Amino acid sequence: MSSLSELGQRAKHASRTLALASSRTKDAALHAAADLLVERSNEILRANASDVARAEAGGVSPAVIDRLRLSEARVVAMAGGLRQVAGLTDPVGEVVEGWVRPNGLRIEKVRVPLGVVAIIYENRPNVTSDAAGLCLKSGNAAFLRGSSAALVSNKAVAAALQEGFARAGLPRDCLVLVEDTSYESAREFMRLRGVIDCLIPRGGPSLIQAVVENATVPYVIDGDGNCHLYVDAAADLDMAVSLLVNGKTQRPSVCNATESLVVHRDVASKFLPAATAALPGVRLVGDEAARDLVPAIEPATEEDWGKEYLDLVLSVRVVDDLDAAIAHIQRYGSGHTEAIVTGDLVAAQRFTQEVDAAAVVVNASTRFTDGEEFGFGAEIGISTQKLHARGPMGVRELTTTKYIVTGNGQVRA
Amino acid sequence: MSSLSELGQRAKHASRTLALASSRTKDAALHAAADLLVERSNEILRANASDVARAEAGGVSPAVIDRLRLSEARVVAMAGGLRQVAGLTDPVGEVVEGWVRPNGLRIEKVRVPLGVVAIIYENRPNVTSDAAGLCLKSGNAAFLRGSSAALVSNKAVAAALQEGFARAGLPRDCLVLVEDTSYESAREFMRLRGVIDCLIPRGGPSLIQAVVENATVPYVIDGDGNCHLYVDAAADLDMAVSLLVNGKTQRPSVCNATESLVVHRDVASKFLPAATAALPGVRLVGDEAARDLVPAIEPATEEDWGKEYLDLVLSVRVVDDLDAAIAHIQRYGSGHTEAIVTGDLVAAQRFTQEVDAAAVVVNASTRFTDGEEFGFGAEIGISTQKLHARGPMGVRELTTTKYIVTGNGQVRA
Repeated sequence: MSSLSELGQRAKHASRTLALASSRTKDAALHAAADLLVERSNEILRANASDVARAEAGGVSPAVIDRLRLSEARVVAMAGGLRQVAGLTDPVGEVVEGWVRPNGLRIEKVRVPLGVVAIIYENRPNVTSDAAGLCLKSGNAAFLRGSSAALVSNKAVAAALQEGFARAGLPRDCLVLVEDTSYESAREFMRLRGVIDCLIPRGGPSLIQAVVENATVPYVIDGDGNCHLYVDAAADLDMAVSLLVNGKTQRPSVCNATESLVVHRDVASKFLPAATAALPGVRLVGDEAARDLVPAIEPATEEDWGKEYLDLVLSVRVVDDLDAAIAHIQRYGSGHTEAIVTGDLVAAQRFTQEVDAAAVVVNASTRFTDGEEFGFGAEIGISTQKLHARGPMGVRELTTTKYIVTGNGQVRA
Repeated sequence: MSSLSELGQRAKHASRTLALASSRTKDAALHAAADLLVERSNEILRANASDVARAEAGGVSPAVIDRLRLSEARVVAMAGGLRQVAGLTDPVGEVVEGWVRPNGLRIEKVRVPLGVVAIIYENRPNVTSDAAGLCLKSGNAAFLRGSSAALVSNKAVAAALQEGFARAGLPRDCLVLVEDTSYESAREFMRLRGVIDCLIPRGGPSLIQAVVENATVPYVIDGDGNCHLYVDAAADLDMAVSLLVNGKTQRPSVCNATESLVVHRDVASKFLPAATAALPGVRLVGDEAARDLVPAIEPATEEDWGKEYLDLVLSVRVVDDLDAAIAHIQRYGSGHTEAIVTGDLVAAQRFTQEVDAAAVVVNASTRFTDGEEFGFGAEIGISTQKLHARGPMGVRELTTTKYIVTGNGQVRA
């Protein structure tokens, strides 16, 4: 097995060729890779079966095994994802802006690939294909480190993709898969400064914390979503019930699910009984005011307010006014998605201006913060940081810019 | 003295008010601060004299003392800088883009302040004023940590600015100055995650290395400039001499000065004697081919090729072709500014596409990579990283964006 830095150098080398590839070549590579995934689906499913058998023998939980398991349909969906990415607009080469200086210098800000994009992820083998496709489209070599549980599947998927890229004349090393999944290797991976241009960790809080503490390479955090729905005094209460039910129950395990309900005191007595009745099977925890109105609500602890449950649990708080709602969200929110339900223009304006989050939503479900729902076609993750990219990250967020300055002999006075 | 995290909380608190301030209020604050700098210039110069006396007694080098020393004219220039920043377009509130989704959701990407911008800098007291002005204009609280040598000056400057901000009704804590300049405090400063939204270290390689190794807060690196000038076979050699002289000698101590000359073999025998004759007083080091042509060139070591001299020293390399020039720059460049002199369209195209740097320049001096020269009015630094901002950073680069999503009850299917 090659050392991690040798693998990185291979990705770096490939990235230089890939950065100059035309959209046509990249799209051909994505289609060839999609074809090969389907052609080799038996082989990929056999590899996956061995990962699943190993996980089952190791007593891994059914939910984790479900994420690990591939099926014919899932492989076809992976191929479809690559074809969809091929259909997106290539962000590389876009002239973001350009102007001429008084001395005649022409300045253009042009979109270019980052170089090597590294991704650390967990058990889903489809991430191998999704991430490699988005990286390729944006002209970046993908340097991927999945979990040990999915290693056999990831190798089979990666081999098909690499072969597809090669058929279009691109280097196989446009995708480099790290096979050493030890803790030491993860730490070394995060410190390959000069090799990795951007690291995107996709995993839970312990992975994020490890990156923040150890990484020396630039990174974008795809962090927690402790998303609030605030029901204002001027809310349409039927709409509020519908947004709450959608945000909490449509897919509770994802980062843009609603985790906390904040209700204005003036409508709490009318809204809370109706809202909680519409959430059968959801465990409710709340403050005293909420519990006075709905006895089924259990007491919330301080910890509850900051918690991303990713489950059918909802925290409920009653507040005196908009200021208190904003202050609560400011204190406990994770900067992902915060929503208000209101018919009051001033309340909507204040909420969108004062709440500091990647996405602030008025009269819609928190579940819309998503690359596909935003129209980006596909996403590599949702950034909860403020630098580089904030919110859903599509292919454009996998690029940087360079300035091209053209003159005819200008010197500085 | 308050603890560092208390100081940070004060900046954070002020940043919330400042984020909502109108351009008119911010500009009034900048003008009031400028007025106060001038009014209090005697006080500021007295404070500075004590810093200078202390430095002189400590045997600090004249160059460092020159950077530390203020004069009436420098204070007036600081005030003028604040007024100039007041005249810039406010980036906050700009709708960067916006669209409507098929389900009727309206999505807007709006420019907002980062929050708390922290800057670690060295001896120039004018940075206190310049940085605070750019931060205020872009709606960010400035959390500043200068050097111990400049502490008395920085306190006097900061007091004038804070008073000016307060006169316009903004919190004094829009500028918070850290007075504890110990090493331990610097390390703690870099780890105030959740308080500092962006750290910009302005200093030498050891500071940058300390940030890369220790920081847990997001940062933008204002790094080295090992800038090359490549003289192609198809170059106008008179223009090349002029660009070289300007790049190397117009201000050798800055990051966009030319540090290395790369010459195509075909023009080396004609160009190098003329070029070196035009650089009296510049120490030249080079490879064998260069030394064969100009005996005054001393032998270059491997270390020379990667070096940012910031002085009247130039490394000289002769290459066989454009590929070799690009490969040399790829290997030794620092990703700041790289220039080509050529009349050949294909060479210019290949150079601008293949060289990976913040700015790639055709037929102009490397010295143009600069916020003022780019037309940004003023700059907080020049980013040599690829994430968030790359190249000169003006007030716009001190902002982030948020998505505002507006619906009328949409839920996700």
